[in-house]
Amino acid sequence: MTTVAAYAAPAAKAPLERTTIERRPVGEFDVLIDIKFAGICHSDIHQAQEGWGEAIFPMVPGHEIAGIVSEVGPGVTKYKVGDRVGVGCFVDSCRECDNCKAGQEQYCVTGSVATYNAIGKDGEPTYGGYSQKIVVNENYVLRIPDGLSLDVAAPLLCAGITLYSPLKRWNAGPGKKVAILGMGGLGHMGVKIAHALGAEVTVLSQSLRKQEDGLKLGADHYYATSDPKTFQELQGTFDLIVSTVSAPLDFNAYLTLLKTEGALVNVGAPEEPISLNLFSVIGGGKTLAGSMIGGIPETQEMLDFCAAHGIGSEIELIEASEVNTAYERVQSSDVRYRFVIDTATI
Amino acid sequence: MTTVAAYAAPAAKAPLERTTIERRPVGEFDVLIDIKFAGICHSDIHQAQEGWGEAIFPMVPGHEIAGIVSEVGPGVTKYKVGDRVGVGCFVDSCRECDNCKAGQEQYCVTGSVATYNAIGKDGEPTYGGYSQKIVVNENYVLRIPDGLSLDVAAPLLCAGITLYSPLKRWNAGPGKKVAILGMGGLGHMGVKIAHALGAEVTVLSQSLRKQEDGLKLGADHYYATSDPKTFQELQGTFDLIVSTVSAPLDFNAYLTLLKTEGALVNVGAPEEPISLNLFSVIGGGKTLAGSMIGGIPETQEMLDFCAAHGIGSEIELIEASEVNTAYERVQSSDVRYRFVIDTATI
Repeated sequence: MTTVAAYAAPAAKAPLERTTIERRPVGEFDVLIDIKFAGICHSDIHQAQEGWGEAIFPMVPGHEIAGIVSEVGPGVTKYKVGDRVGVGCFVDSCRECDNCKAGQEQYCVTGSVATYNAIGKDGEPTYGGYSQKIVVNENYVLRIPDGLSLDVAAPLLCAGITLYSPLKRWNAGPGKKVAILGMGGLGHMGVKIAHALGAEVTVLSQSLRKQEDGLKLGADHYYATSDPKTFQELQGTFDLIVSTVSAPLDFNAYLTLLKTEGALVNVGAPEEPISLNLFSVIGGGKTLAGSMIGGIPETQEMLDFCAAHGIGSEIELIEASEVNTAYERVQSSDVRYRFVIDTATI
Repeated sequence: MTTVAAYAAPAAKAPLERTTIERRPVGEFDVLIDIKFAGICHSDIHQAQEGWGEAIFPMVPGHEIAGIVSEVGPGVTKYKVGDRVGVGCFVDSCRECDNCKAGQEQYCVTGSVATYNAIGKDGEPTYGGYSQKIVVNENYVLRIPDGLSLDVAAPLLCAGITLYSPLKRWNAGPGKKVAILGMGGLGHMGVKIAHALGAEVTVLSQSLRKQEDGLKLGADHYYATSDPKTFQELQGTFDLIVSTVSAPLDFNAYLTLLKTEGALVNVGAPEEPISLNLFSVIGGGKTLAGSMIGGIPETQEMLDFCAAHGIGSEIELIEASEVNTAYERVQSSDVRYRFVIDTATI
């Protein structure tokens, strides 16, 4: 066991504080990673505050992890000491179900093992990226290409793949009109990736406050959803809308913005059930779908794609001691566009 | 103008009665059809009773029409006198929008002209198939292959294409597990077509009352949705569910029956909005979609497919004077599986 400095929430809704945790010995197929950077995802806050149900405490959040391999087990073939690597939202899965075999480990039928707030196969709680080291089976480790700085790469491990996967599956590309709904940590990655895929990109944001950023990051158009004219003007426009919003929305209204046979794909989700008039999808043969992060092979593909296109997250680098303030700012949408903890400051 | 015998609802919710209507002269590109058979679709009843909003009266319902060409305009090239033909849910559209040009006339952006309860391009109300003749532009007429009897072909023009289109679009075929939700006029066509496409077909019906029929028509499995064990047993089973049900359903429960990245496609729709937990589609990358009949080219493809596979509707042939009784029986789900009016009896 290795004792590692970390930032943890000691209990639900309690401020995070510096502590130490134990990491398991490096097993035959394990990689020990010196964590350099850890992104702050809104879901870290949901879980630390038990907004999504009962959680495990103390909790070390963080599933946007970038670092350097510092030790490998004797059976490891994929990584060597010094490699630049990342870890995303899960660190294990059953490895035997159809989804795991198909590289869709995020949909493991027995449930993948989350990077934190879960129980690992060793029976111990998992602890996430707000810490200085982590031990992960090599099959759940990603390679960060040389062209990508580790700090801006960290958020790709959740925010990046969460947008990349539905954009690819639902055919964002040349000749397609794609809207990104919400211009936050997830949304800004959607703008960059959809633009790099060759789509014509529109941001649909509550206000025009971040319009300049959106256009700079690759959007062709930017509309305020608080303006009713937006819904008149854009009716029947989009092949694909990816919604990153977790606040309640009028989905019937957004479905009118789709072309015939278009798709509205949700990666953010309101906590309450939505009300949907099925005629909103029947007329026009439309689709309302969901998507959850991505599997290991597709996450690697995304990292390679981002490196090839010079895409990282827009970040505010912070010291670990600022994490509680950062949480407050995420909750008031006051971040452009992802906080990343420099783990050397833990 | 030609005076034609018909059955019409004189006002909303009034019983249908024998009357006469005027059909327009046969124009340059028009086909005059001697109607032989007209199917009774549940939507005929919805409209005659103004269940879907204000309607045009007198109303001659019927959009499942099969008959013989008895006259053609001088510009007609596709049909000649004596041809066996059908007419479905619409008799015209703008012909200029992207959807019309793509053969998706049902999604015409200015609205296709419904076969009845609509205003045609001549400014006159359209009247449907419960009548002895109809005049239709040749581009909105379908050819009924010789192998198909006209009586069992009539319901294909709505019920057949309504199921064929989503089954094709969402890849029903060999190796795919497809559920048809509801075993009525639409559902029984879904069973036949999905089976002919090579899929493994399961019927999900409220009870096992029609199980014997379902298995005979091509279903491999039959489950009662009133039995909670059905939902346990079938969790994660289907690539595709096509719902033909217009009663309220627990969509979150049905979505659990899908495999990862499976689709639940609605062709029936409850009148009230549904309540949907978006986590039901996000976990598993699932799809909730809609589909509405099909365009002219796909309807022809469906008719050719049905002829090649010997597929017609299961019908109860009735005289026109029985139409009001038939409406009552449709509303109490007491039909196996489609009433068809012998228009010679009007």
